[in-house]
Amino acid sequence: MQIDLPRPTEADPAAAGAVQELMGGKFGEMSTLMNYTYQSFNMRGKSKVRPYYDLIANIAAEEFGHIELVANTVNLLLDQTFESANGATPPLNVGMGTGNPDHFLNFGLGTIPGGAAGKAWTGENVFNSGNLKLDLLHNFFLESGARMGKIRVYEMTDNPVAREMIGYLIVRGGVHQEAYAKALGDLSGVDITGLLPVPEISSLNFPHAKKFVDKGYHRFMYRFSPDDYKQLSEIWNGSQVETGEPREVVDGPPEGGEVPDLTPMPALYAPGVNEEDIAEIAQRLGS
Amino acid sequence: MQIDLPRPTEADPAAAGAVQELMGGKFGEMSTLMNYTYQSFNMRGKSKVRPYYDLIANIAAEEFGHIELVANTVNLLLDQTFESANGATPPLNVGMGTGNPDHFLNFGLGTIPGGAAGKAWTGENVFNSGNLKLDLLHNFFLESGARMGKIRVYEMTDNPVAREMIGYLIVRGGVHQEAYAKALGDLSGVDITGLLPVPEISSLNFPHAKKFVDKGYHRFMYRFSPDDYKQLSEIWNGSQVETGEPREVVDGPPEGGEVPDLTPMPALYAPGVNEEDIAEIAQRLGS
Amino acid sequence: MQIDLPRPTEADPAAAGAVQELMGGKFGEMSTLMNYTYQSFNMRGKSKVRPYYDLIANIAAEEFGHIELVANTVNLLLDQTFESANGATPPLNVGMGTGNPDHFLNFGLGTIPGGAAGKAWTGENVFNSGNLKLDLLHNFFLESGARMGKIRVYEMTDNPVAREMIGYLIVRGGVHQEAYAKALGDLSGVDITGLLPVPEISSLNFPHAKKFVDKGYHRFMYRFSPDDYKQLSEIWNGSQVETGEPREVVDGPPEGGEVPDLTPMPALYAPGVNEEDIAEIAQRLGS
Amino acid sequence: MQIDLPRPTEADPAAAGAVQELMGGKFGEMSTLMNYTYQSFNMRGKSKVRPYYDLIANIAAEEFGHIELVANTVNLLLDQTFESANGATPPLNVGMGTGNPDHFLNFGLGTIPGGAAGKAWTGENVFNSGNLKLDLLHNFFLESGARMGKIRVYEMTDNPVAREMIGYLIVRGGVHQEAYAKALGDLSGVDITGLLPVPEISSLNFPHAKKFVDKGYHRFMYRFSPDDYKQLSEIWNGSQVETGEPREVVDGPPEGGEVPDLTPMPALYAPGVNEEDIAEIAQRLGS
Amino acid sequence: MQIDLPRPTEADPAAAGAVQELMGGKFGEMSTLMNYTYQSFNMRGKSKVRPYYDLIANIAAEEFGHIELVANTVNLLLDQTFESANGATPPLNVGMGTGNPDHFLNFGLGTIPGGAAGKAWTGENVFNSGNLKLDLLHNFFLESGARMGKIRVYEMTDNPVAREMIGYLIVRGGVHQEAYAKALGDLSGVDITGLLPVPEISSLNFPHAKKFVDKGYHRFMYRFSPDDYKQLSEIWNGSQVETGEPREVVDGPPEGGEVPDLTPMPALYAPGVNEEDIAEIAQRLGS
Amino acid sequence: MQIDLPRPTEADPAAAGAVQELMGGKFGEMSTLMNYTYQSFNMRGKSKVRPYYDLIANIAAEEFGHIELVANTVNLLLDQTFESANGATPPLNVGMGTGNPDHFLNFGLGTIPGGAAGKAWTGENVFNSGNLKLDLLHNFFLESGARMGKIRVYEMTDNPVAREMIGYLIVRGGVHQEAYAKALGDLSGVDITGLLPVPEISSLNFPHAKKFVDKGYHRFMYRFSPDDYKQLSEIWNGSQVETGEPREVVDGPPEGGEVPDLTPMPALYAPGVNEEDIAEIAQRLGS
Repeated sequence: MQIDLPRPTEADPAAAGAVQELMGGKFGEMSTLMNYTYQSFNMRGKSKVRPYYDLIANIAAEEFGHIELVANTVNLLLDQTFESANGATPPLNVGMGTGNPDHFLNFGLGTIPGGAAGKAWTGENVFNSGNLKLDLLHNFFLESGARMGKIRVYEMTDNPVAREMIGYLIVRGGVHQEAYAKALGDLSGVDITGLLPVPEISSLNFPHAKKFVDKGYHRFMYRFSPDDYKQLSEIWNGSQVETGEPREVVDGPPEGGEVPDLTPMPALYAPGVNEEDIAEIAQRLGS
Repeated sequence: MQIDLPRPTEADPAAAGAVQELMGGKFGEMSTLMNYTYQSFNMRGKSKVRPYYDLIANIAAEEFGHIELVANTVNLLLDQTFESANGATPPLNVGMGTGNPDHFLNFGLGTIPGGAAGKAWTGENVFNSGNLKLDLLHNFFLESGARMGKIRVYEMTDNPVAREMIGYLIVRGGVHQEAYAKALGDLSGVDITGLLPVPEISSLNFPHAKKFVDKGYHRFMYRFSPDDYKQLSEIWNGSQVETGEPREVVDGPPEGGEVPDLTPMPALYAPGVNEEDIAEIAQRLGS
Repeated sequence: MQIDLPRPTEADPAAAGAVQELMGGKFGEMSTLMNYTYQSFNMRGKSKVRPYYDLIANIAAEEFGHIELVANTVNLLLDQTFESANGATPPLNVGMGTGNPDHFLNFGLGTIPGGAAGKAWTGENVFNSGNLKLDLLHNFFLESGARMGKIRVYEMTDNPVAREMIGYLIVRGGVHQEAYAKALGDLSGVDITGLLPVPEISSLNFPHAKKFVDKGYHRFMYRFSPDDYKQLSEIWNGSQVETGEPREVVDGPPEGGEVPDLTPMPALYAPGVNEEDIAEIAQRLGS
Repeated sequence: MQIDLPRPTEADPAAAGAVQELMGGKFGEMSTLMNYTYQSFNMRGKSKVRPYYDLIANIAAEEFGHIELVANTVNLLLDQTFESANGATPPLNVGMGTGNPDHFLNFGLGTIPGGAAGKAWTGENVFNSGNLKLDLLHNFFLESGARMGKIRVYEMTDNPVAREMIGYLIVRGGVHQEAYAKALGDLSGVDITGLLPVPEISSLNFPHAKKFVDKGYHRFMYRFSPDDYKQLSEIWNGSQVETGEPREVVDGPPEGGEVPDLTPMPALYAPGVNEEDIAEIAQRLGS
Repeated sequence: MQIDLPRPTEADPAAAGAVQELMGGKFGEMSTLMNYTYQSFNMRGKSKVRPYYDLIANIAAEEFGHIELVANTVNLLLDQTFESANGATPPLNVGMGTGNPDHFLNFGLGTIPGGAAGKAWTGENVFNSGNLKLDLLHNFFLESGARMGKIRVYEMTDNPVAREMIGYLIVRGGVHQEAYAKALGDLSGVDITGLLPVPEISSLNFPHAKKFVDKGYHRFMYRFSPDDYKQLSEIWNGSQVETGEPREVVDGPPEGGEVPDLTPMPALYAPGVNEEDIAEIAQRLGS
Repeated sequence: MQIDLPRPTEADPAAAGAVQELMGGKFGEMSTLMNYTYQSFNMRGKSKVRPYYDLIANIAAEEFGHIELVANTVNLLLDQTFESANGATPPLNVGMGTGNPDHFLNFGLGTIPGGAAGKAWTGENVFNSGNLKLDLLHNFFLESGARMGKIRVYEMTDNPVAREMIGYLIVRGGVHQEAYAKALGDLSGVDITGLLPVPEISSLNFPHAKKFVDKGYHRFMYRFSPDDYKQLSEIWNGSQVETGEPREVVDGPPEGGEVPDLTPMPALYAPGVNEEDIAEIAQRLGS
């Protein structure tokens, strides 16, 4: 996983509900992942427009790590649900009213492939005209909408696990946003990086984002394949737009954190129950 | 890409329309990919049930290659659309009546994240109860539905590109189907591999599948990470259910074929047009 | 089944596609069935408004027979698909372009719970305000839309199996339409049966409907329970609006026809295959 | 109605919201009803596979009773909404935040054809391949998902009306789950009843379920038609898997309880208002 | 805007959530607007049925003003969100649990084109058979459902801004309901205005509606074009059904109120931020 | 109506099906209309950012005329359906296989509020962050996607009615695209009009568009209100990007053409039938 997340001591279903938007909302990580994946599959003349292909396919690879990161965040935010319920019966009644009852009914307190109001993610969210200029313009818009979404969720919850993750995504999403602006400029001859930041507030103003900027994450493009995506640096070069520091292609993925080992939940039979679990649950159900 | 695909000499929009079901239908590769991805993200007690986690996460990795494979198939089936139109005006009018006009309108003759009737793929297709036995049962059912789907599409088109890909997926999907049956049996103590094949016809009866069986693809579980998924062989062992040959974990992904370099389509401005293209298109539009 | 259907000698996928609208379109039989079912479940003060409850619940019971009838029609229209394909390979390629590929992919040539363009039926089609006057007004409108739908499908196909069924439904739907008009008039004191027919053409003008009128089906309200719905006749009385003949409550369901024993389809493994089937299919697949 | 439900003294909108999942969620009673209904309509070779047809069609008949039961539960849970509001103005403001505002806006405090988050039930939830082995495997999975859903809702609410109903459905759903396992075993020669229970907890551990087990409801298959479904006992025989007691086909439906006569709600004009009602409502609206 | 709305001093997210139903619910103003718009576009023989065309097209014009009115209501109900949050961090956490998180995530505290549970409005809500009698019957039903919806939302919130708007819409919607009843009667020769009011309570009983009746708004049909819709008075004549006062066609739109100038929200960068805003926000984000 | 359309002599259901994309596809006129409408409703600080408000609200007004124009195009393309059927029975069987059976079933051969594959238009297509820079960026992208869509439909049909309309929309859509580029540049200080044209082909290359350019339609911004939108010229000034001619604000709407008087269709009872119609239809139904 790309960063370490703190382990919360309490469940925060409202935060989990809001964070879902960053997974499966129209501007969540499923959308960025799938837009770039389908665009890379369908791109014509890959050999002629190699740097653009490399950019899009490589960012898709990073986005896969982002859905993992959001997933772990949601899981951690719900991991203490039974402990937070503190013996109350019924323990899952917090599940109604969060806008995402599927967390509690069908997903075993895990993340869902959908957004903040429980709307499923849909392939309708993928745009891929085949026209490179238009697709790059779309991607720049998509990342701008995604940046707005992250900021809005940041304003909905101050849960430290959520904000740690959002801070990181603001920085990395900012790189993608800037990369598409740069690529569109290279293709068309019109520099549009001057539009940044969209929305008009620097990532440096978010404390949870600034610490990642301080590590340089705002100017790195990680290359996610040892053998491919070698022409990334034909696009990702020059100076990062806010700090003026040099943009840099880094070979290999970011050093990351541990994937959290989520607590088994006997009461949900997740992953499954043994004899002692059954006895304990039976006692509770009989209350 | 996991196999080589022949390069067709004619567009086959009906075949492309049908093959889409294997991408984004309820039982298509997007569904297998996303079910296993979310199940691996959300799995509790990963350290306690490691072999099952390894199996599900590793199959997810293979499915990512499968969506690439289906995508390239659809792209190849539509790659000669203008050539097949043979100068007719308008060249894209074949796009209505295929059930998937989005191929022609919004995706530049590329694959869409949806199924045979143009229905978008949706996160509703993901099942993830958190209960391991139930999730394995689901996965076994899902692969069985997917095998049925492949056979049905095989009966809808005899296009050789389509059948090459379907033959391969029948064999690899059969491995996944059998692996989930084996895993469910190991967990529960009830051997259900005797249910296979579902549906009741051996993959050996499909010539396009048999050739991959002859290479042993029906008994290999590829390990898609050099560092992870090391406990696969605790589940994938014993004898393949139809041939009795030994099941085998193979380190590393399958050797594959070249990703086809799709023909640029100036008339769709895909990936983009230069001066000469514009002149040529302008002439046609004026006709 | 409420009537006998002729057994077609050829498959007619286009007719099957159109007839689906009468199953699962917004004004199809699933909608009438489910509207009246939920209205009867949710009705308040059942003891105070018994005749209205009896009417709605009883019509719901008849609609259940109608979905069976439409289902058998679709099944018969597709029953000869392999025979009509006449040995062609691939035999199911007729499945694309009908608007309902799910018939061929996921439903084994059976009916689907959806409409003419493959849209799934949805609970959004149910209206149930709890206000009796408004619900009756809705039901009168719903039956009027349903009558329009039947006439439109009648104009889309002249397949004799389809028209036999449609003719019957025009007559029975006409009874329901008139019954809701009558009930609304009784409740409100405003006779609206004068609006009939909607649309403005007598059922007598449809030869396939007229023969059922000649049997009196346009004036019978069948009582579908031996013990319940005893107050039907408080509403269903007086004169049928077009012919002036007496409306009549008939105890018991209509005498009907045989449910057709649909041909097994070894090529689809439906219901399942035996040894000989496999051999035959294997031969075909290898061609 | 198949059982008696206690009459609650207070409205419990949260419980009503959760219970809706058992009506119209993906694994709710609408889904089991409609899956088996369409499978029975579309089944080929009914005369050749009669016991399987009888099983599926007969269980469909029982499921119709289950949607009635869930409907009455939801209605009772909301029946005292105005009394619970206790004169507050506005009386329906509890309707936002339950995830199902349609109960209050469009359904007159009645049940909706949808699930816990207000998602409409959809025909997409029906699976019917036509292949008998695959359809039975699906049905076994569907009942397993449904059992999980019931247990989860049980953990979301301890409302006694809700739990009475859920306890009953756990037992009856368990019979259906076991019946499909048995049928699949008979067809394929592989006994999979050893997988039960899924999830891994006996129904006996739920006090609200155990009382129905004590009456033998876990081993009875009710035959819902005096004239049909005569070959049920070719499948439903042997020993119930948890208790070892004999499985038994019972002629006729279960003895049941009274359908509750839901309180008229003048404030909602449901079913309609008379002069006095209007005066009273007018006074309140003017406050 | 057609009326003046009071300016609230506090945000009321629950009221905003409920009022959304009147914008984009199945019976909200988007539905009436779009039904009449499409019916007027598609109407055949406009020259032969001019008064009906004029009626439908003219009411469509008024409905456009109604979506503006509902939009401003929702906006006002959320306009003080930050002030009501009173410095709390995070300020938007009220956004979860209202059923409409999109207000807070994607719409900048503005209205959404959807209903009370965040369901998007859809073109499925438009009915347009082309048969004039049936379309008028539909429109009468639609307005009746819409009147029910307004009354239900009135019972969900007593927020004075919301009720001011609802009172107005009850009166104007009542005019449309009566006009379609009158038109259907003129076309068919069956007077159905006697069905009114549906539901059975006079608008006079709602204090917020009565004041608009006192101004005569219940008997005016505004003519929204100086040059068109000249045959309105062939339908809109006679006596208003509840008061017996004369129906009257008024040339020109209603005199209205000011469109409120919504407060800029620097914290949402809406419409955009300047230097001072950024400084202030940055300080808050760092807290 | 903004232009005159030629009256076709033959029905062209395939063209009608494709043109629907320009009505209700994701990038069709319903989307541009509703995006700008909701953005104008929800815009904060209207008095501070008046020119931007004027621009968006004024373009919304023009888009309303565009949905009328697309509607009439579809209607004309289907107006001769019965004549083209030439007495064939059944006359509507052309309705299956066009991807839009609703034209024939539920809309009386009129336009539907949906796209090329019959997908209903949905409020999900509206983006409105409240952040002005982001909304303008979106609108520029939306118009670019819309321009692509028009060009693609142009390549799907050479029907002269369709192309007349598309040519006009290419020019007017081009004005909107350029206006949003100009506005975004004014707001941000970064001129992005150099990106035009997107896609990379001049409107002058389309003969059906060029004739409208020759009339100057590519450089006019019509002001759709005599009293409002007075600050349009603060944005719409300077030189049109392709021709260098001066941009100009024109007071008042474009001079237009006649709304076609669509042929009554007795066979569809549209708008309704008289005695003679009924006799004629009855005769046909009996054939």
